[in-house]
Amino acid sequence: MTTLAITGGTVLLPDATVTRADVLVDRSAGEILEIGDDLGADADETLDATESLVTPGFVNGHCHVAMTLLRGYADDKALDAWLREDIWPVEAELTADSVRAGTELGVLEMIKSGTTAFADMYFFVPTIADVVDEAGLRARLGHGVISVAKDEDEAREDAREGLAVAEEIDGMADGRISSAFMPHSLTTVDGQYLSEFVSEARELGVPLHYHANETEDEVTPIVEEHGVRPLAYAAEKGMLEPEDFIAHGVHVDESEIGLLAEAGTSVIHCPASNMKLASGMAPVERMREAGVTVGLGTDGAASNNDLSMLDEARDAAMLGKLAADDASAVPAEAVVDMLTGATADAIGLESGRLEAGAPADLAVIDLEKPHLTPAHDLVSHLAYAAAAADVRHTVCDGRVLMRDREVLTLDEAAVRDRAREEAAALVDRAES
Amino acid sequence: MTTLAITGGTVLLPDATVTRADVLVDRSAGEILEIGDDLGADADETLDATESLVTPGFVNGHCHVAMTLLRGYADDKALDAWLREDIWPVEAELTADSVRAGTELGVLEMIKSGTTAFADMYFFVPTIADVVDEAGLRARLGHGVISVAKDEDEAREDAREGLAVAEEIDGMADGRISSAFMPHSLTTVDGQYLSEFVSEARELGVPLHYHANETEDEVTPIVEEHGVRPLAYAAEKGMLEPEDFIAHGVHVDESEIGLLAEAGTSVIHCPASNMKLASGMAPVERMREAGVTVGLGTDGAASNNDLSMLDEARDAAMLGKLAADDASAVPAEAVVDMLTGATADAIGLESGRLEAGAPADLAVIDLEKPHLTPAHDLVSHLAYAAAAADVRHTVCDGRVLMRDREVLTLDEAAVRDRAREEAAALVDRAES
Ligand SMILES: [Zn+2]
Ligand SMILES: [Zn+2]
Repeated sequence: MTTLAITGGTVLLPDATVTRADVLVDRSAGEILEIGDDLGADADETLDATESLVTPGFVNGHCHVAMTLLRGYADDKALDAWLREDIWPVEAELTADSVRAGTELGVLEMIKSGTTAFADMYFFVPTIADVVDEAGLRARLGHGVISVAKDEDEAREDAREGLAVAEEIDGMADGRISSAFMPHSLTTVDGQYLSEFVSEARELGVPLHYHANETEDEVTPIVEEHGVRPLAYAAEKGMLEPEDFIAHGVHVDESEIGLLAEAGTSVIHCPASNMKLASGMAPVERMREAGVTVGLGTDGAASNNDLSMLDEARDAAMLGKLAADDASAVPAEAVVDMLTGATADAIGLESGRLEAGAPADLAVIDLEKPHLTPAHDLVSHLAYAAAAADVRHTVCDGRVLMRDREVLTLDEAAVRDRAREEAAALVDRAES
Repeated sequence: MTTLAITGGTVLLPDATVTRADVLVDRSAGEILEIGDDLGADADETLDATESLVTPGFVNGHCHVAMTLLRGYADDKALDAWLREDIWPVEAELTADSVRAGTELGVLEMIKSGTTAFADMYFFVPTIADVVDEAGLRARLGHGVISVAKDEDEAREDAREGLAVAEEIDGMADGRISSAFMPHSLTTVDGQYLSEFVSEARELGVPLHYHANETEDEVTPIVEEHGVRPLAYAAEKGMLEPEDFIAHGVHVDESEIGLLAEAGTSVIHCPASNMKLASGMAPVERMREAGVTVGLGTDGAASNNDLSMLDEARDAAMLGKLAADDASAVPAEAVVDMLTGATADAIGLESGRLEAGAPADLAVIDLEKPHLTPAHDLVSHLAYAAAAADVRHTVCDGRVLMRDREVLTLDEAAVRDRAREEAAALVDRAES
């Protein structure tokens, strides 16, 4: 066994209290051995956490990571027009190379902002899995299945690809990569394919992840066509199981909150995307009260426009209060849970909490910053004031991915160069 | 004349376009001489802006800078309870030393996040002016006048202090400091004092700045007591002149938007504070359409919890869309204007635009970051993706305040130490 010790820091514990302690990690098993005093002396490798907060690595519950290539490409448009006029035409030109470049850029940004695990829906998923493997992160990945604008054969083939990919990548990278079956949404995949393929996904034993109730425009057609709210429709299709997680859940009514709570299906809240696309305000406080596990995600960088989960936590706290018309709603401890453990639970990972036996996924935040001074309350700082650039070190599965802001698993300059080139080429293809 | 050249960068121009250019500054006059090619050769001092965006220094239109001492002290409470139970009891224990320490911490954070000018309402204003002078920023400062919980003599004395301070500090620091008469709000200062002292402020020739229409709870009592909406009441009191600027303007109706537009009075929008205190969503797009100058402010760090204007810009874009139920509302160019020129206009400063003859107040943003890659649109990046830590250099009035993240006018470690000590002592006094 070789060990890694994170020494001299203040550690955020699962009960949202903090304590001065070292963290000792079994690098080979990728697990936390112990949290306590003076654990650094015999460790094979140490990370300094003096004047720093040691937190669980952040978990991004809903992303389209390769969309970093489209960061700032089209802003200030509503979801439907934005997808149809800008995003989908460009995405039609994606290649494995562009997805590789966008994924490298995205996971680089994640590592630099303390994220150690994410769930992702996109295309060329084996390529994404490859990059995640090399970069050292943990991820639950899936192929975004869509049937609109496809004939039956194409639609079926796309769904089959979704299943095949889920089977192929599950357990890759020593188990750091898991998969899900990911129909894009309840309106972009026709009901017949949902009926047909959801049960096949269950046989594979992978969860479902899909967009649901993001905008009113997504709710109305389902109510009109099927006579029930979207999540009742999802339940009819067998898509509301405890291991499943939906993205957004903005326009959910009380009956749907009840369905989610009863089913144990989690919701990934994406506040920045919901604000930027004017989708609306998810009833986060209400869902939490009802017992729904609410996690947090950035969505793609084209509707955010960054992948920093610390930004997202602040947004979630602030938007949650506004949605509840109550400044005490979605308090700091709640968003810190959403930043870590709750999202890990939602997407079915063991990480998100610092305790003996847990995966050694963590971030170390430098507190020696003006905007983190004074230190009345470190949980408040994590929720409201800490920023991506405050992350000193990032560790996933016991491996140091970033040390003193230097990413060790990717060549930052080369990744940025490739991303610029592939983004330019992609936009050229789409616009020519 | 000695000169400063900012070389090799991309410059954000007043029309929201960008161009590759150098910026030449007359350090003695504190003015921009020229924006163009190859201006660095003979300059007395240069700042490297390679792979960087040169923007006007950000302008924070509404702050209580010394409240950095209370960052994270009390979160997740509604405005009224938060003020009465947490903030005011601590503020009652403020001393000039605590205000000095909090102001130093706040202006340090401002310089590190590219802010070069701000408007501030607080207490011990000559002390604040002193720190601003030393730190090299530009500011419009005033004493927060309150009459609630005071007898007539005390209330009058407080208002007199507001006037005396405005007169005393106006024009200090070679004109970098200006002043305003700052009644705290329309509900915390009794109408008799407004009638009496507003005209005296006009005689001094200083503008008015006050909180207005922040919450519904501030609107109702005015409607009940005076039979008119708050801004009609303000107009009756002579408080709605072109040079005046109000903070918040969340709960303004169409008649009040009309009054603001007609009067030429500006509004400082504080999106983070409005969300965190669940105050509501200001109709920013509607006000802009009506011709109201809408600037941007952080409010105090206790309700934000940082002073980064880049965070605020992103919040403004996102909340503005949500408030308008329109993803095209408050687009990137609008918030970049609010981050710079519009707020300078609102608080009556000449800065906020990079052009020959303008004050040499600017920030240089490092674009060599994963979260700012690729560079489809730098205005989008400034609005949505850039963060405080991306600011490389900060220049105010032709003087370099920060070079390569090192603040030259303040001792960062000493400022942080003093702030920690004074914050602890302040809370001790309040809680004992
Ligand atoms: Zn999505
Ligand atoms: Zn204020």
